[in-house]
Amino acid sequence: MALRHALALDPIPADDPRSDFSGTIRSFDPADPIVRIGDLSAQRGDGVFESLGMVGRHAQEVSAHLERLTRSATLCDLPEPNLAQWREAIARIVVHAPGAGESVQKLILSRGIDGEETPTAWLTLADAPDNTAARRDGIRVATLDRGFASDMPSRAPWLLLGAKTLSYAVNMAAIREARRRGADDAVFVSADGYVLEGPTASVILRQGGRYLTPEPAAGILHGTTQRSIFHHLRSTGAEVAYASITRDELLAAEAAWVVSSIRLAAPIVAIDGEEKERDAAVTASLNNYLLSPRD
Amino acid sequence: MALRHALALDPIPADDPRSDFSGTIRSFDPADPIVRIGDLSAQRGDGVFESLGMVGRHAQEVSAHLERLTRSATLCDLPEPNLAQWREAIARIVVHAPGAGESVQKLILSRGIDGEETPTAWLTLADAPDNTAARRDGIRVATLDRGFASDMPSRAPWLLLGAKTLSYAVNMAAIREARRRGADDAVFVSADGYVLEGPTASVILRQGGRYLTPEPAAGILHGTTQRSIFHHLRSTGAEVAYASITRDELLAAEAAWVVSSIRLAAPIVAIDGEEKERDAAVTASLNNYLLSPRD
Repeated sequence: MALRHALALDPIPADDPRSDFSGTIRSFDPADPIVRIGDLSAQRGDGVFESLGMVGRHAQEVSAHLERLTRSATLCDLPEPNLAQWREAIARIVVHAPGAGESVQKLILSRGIDGEETPTAWLTLADAPDNTAARRDGIRVATLDRGFASDMPSRAPWLLLGAKTLSYAVNMAAIREARRRGADDAVFVSADGYVLEGPTASVILRQGGRYLTPEPAAGILHGTTQRSIFHHLRSTGAEVAYASITRDELLAAEAAWVVSSIRLAAPIVAIDGEEKERDAAVTASLNNYLLSPRD
Repeated sequence: MALRHALALDPIPADDPRSDFSGTIRSFDPADPIVRIGDLSAQRGDGVFESLGMVGRHAQEVSAHLERLTRSATLCDLPEPNLAQWREAIARIVVHAPGAGESVQKLILSRGIDGEETPTAWLTLADAPDNTAARRDGIRVATLDRGFASDMPSRAPWLLLGAKTLSYAVNMAAIREARRRGADDAVFVSADGYVLEGPTASVILRQGGRYLTPEPAAGILHGTTQRSIFHHLRSTGAEVAYASITRDELLAAEAAWVVSSIRLAAPIVAIDGEEKERDAAVTASLNNYLLSPRD
């Protein structure tokens, strides 16, 4: 994913009331090095991030992403982000996106340089990969054990299971393992057999006409795209709910999707090699909605 | 930990037979940015590392650390490191260490820039923090659930439990949680109650005169310092073994230590607030050994 533009932020305290962010946000060429090797993002994956979809120059669901960035920062004992500064940075980077087509914005908040106690932050802009095939033809998934029982997150908050941290090595390893198994992506299942999430996506399924997604309390990220879809489905009169979902229920669902900010709604067409029913009409309608400007 | 010197490596293939590494290793000032924001070390903690202790200009246990770097790379599907190139880089950085006292070398191997498929790598040198008090007076530990059952690592290699990856956010969160509990460091326990390791250290205890450490197969790193200590203890006629160790056995041990490359052997003086017996003579002898030049 070649980067098109990048900004470096000097994060200011959340309660700093200024509205002029001059000097705290700098543009740079993403081909140039900008991160010091002592930065804890590079040393220990010690920071949090968000990936936002963009359609043309409109950044999708900014408030939901900033809300989750704040929540991730809290879970990681990072200083609370100043959202006015982040909104200003987002406003400054969107103008570098092409007027049409999809882009990706990534917000990165690091604990900063080891020993300096000051967070560092960046915002990047890239062209989105072409996800047409995944949205239309779907993806094959492999279910992989995430290792934790579903009651673990509440008992062990130091596992950071609800935070979107920069420590994504396991998420990436799971995708590689799924590919080794002939699938396109993974779906994590808890040690006690409940469906959790994909390494970079949420899972939604339809069962008896109702749309279900796993409980965020099971140690998964509360998906911004999943929330947006639930809001949309509710507005069309559909029933939506958070639920405990077993692997067998996922297999038996009328239709299922992995949903995320960039790939949007990808129908699951096979689970561990077993073909899955799909609903092309609902998939098209979801992606149509997800590609419309959303706030 | 202020960095004293740094090198950037352009990693060459493991089977590249060259012995002249000109052009593949560059010195830089660690205060200058050298990492591109697209680097997967900073974006996703997607890489592996090693921390080596140095006494004067002697790097300790280089072979053991390079062996583990290779193992971590394999577990993460990274290209095998060229160890001759790494040895050359280590030889080039040691001259920047002070002639006496302790330093820290860190080897970082990243998957590289997102989309470019070429690993990036760095080697840094810093003065070691002063660990005199931890080695002499010991540390208080809090036991924290690591979330996984002890049979999980073999069933789920995508969890990367034996790899020393850059995704250390949970390790850092565990140390912060331990401090909130009034301790200095954490000791992870498996979901089924077995002692695993510290977030940045191995655990050794003495029981009935024997020195025991948890099985590496339980999803922990095989500690270079632990191995070195076992080698040393064996040479003095002591009995050493890998074993399954419960939290109760740790509490009941005659003495226990957390051991690592930089802090060396720190006696555990309290576990979850419960005071612990110690053995000052053995502790002093272990640290004396660990501070001698080792290969």
